[in-house]
Amino acid sequence: MNGIHLIADLYRCGGTAVALTQRDALERLCVDECRDAGLTPLGASFYQFLDADGDAAGVTGTVVLAESHLAIHTWPESGNVTLDVYVCNFSRDNSDRARHVYRRVLDALQPEDAVEYEVVRGSLSGEN
Amino acid sequence: MNGIHLIADLYRCGGTAVALTQRDALERLCVDECRDAGLTPLGASFYQFLDADGDAAGVTGTVVLAESHLAIHTWPESGNVTLDVYVCNFSRDNSDRARHVYRRVLDALQPEDAVEYEVVRGSLSGEN
Repeated sequence: MNGIHLIADLYRCGGTAVALTQRDALERLCVDECRDAGLTPLGASFYQFLDADGDAAGVTGTVVLAESHLAIHTWPESGNVTLDVYVCNFSRDNSDRARHVYRRVLDALQPEDAVEYEVVRGSLSGEN
Repeated sequence: MNGIHLIADLYRCGGTAVALTQRDALERLCVDECRDAGLTPLGASFYQFLDADGDAAGVTGTVVLAESHLAIHTWPESGNVTLDVYVCNFSRDNSDRARHVYRRVLDALQPEDAVEYEVVRGSLSGEN
């Protein structure tokens, strides 16, 4: 369980707009970036919100990783997004891989402003 | 995106042992507690880890909610678990619902020790 959890609240994202509104695009971005970073996606669950007219209006989703998870939620009406990337270091140190995914998703979304936190998980567990 | 994110690292859980090792039991616990709290599960992705003998050896999973997500990972060899419950308050204040789910899962797992964090998400977003 020992590892890092990167947390971001992203405001007025000006990047890949389709990723904020289209489930398939956001899922592909997140899964591909996890895989490219050397993490191991085991499953993904992404849901498409629709507005009153039936148009795409936000996405919520998670990627389950062998190393823990990524979670992302979008509010395209404001361009805001929340992002979580938590990886444990059970069999190896995955911290750099987590930072890589996190940075790549931020690069794609290009927020004007971000509030970021980093939480050390499993701080009492030693190497487990 | 404005809401609360409850984070726990749980040590030496002595509660429902089957929930630490069996995917179906853990998924049912998490989905049912979300639903019972009045949250809205939209999907779930839970994965069963196996040990070298092919026996159940930990679970990793997420519940995607209309209100954001729950994520949980277990290490039954030590009884350790990480839990995240993040709910946004887009259409109503869901904070009490998040605390209810969080408390119910902790009650089921009965950790001997816990390190807990609470992160206010979307602090710059007003009511969005």
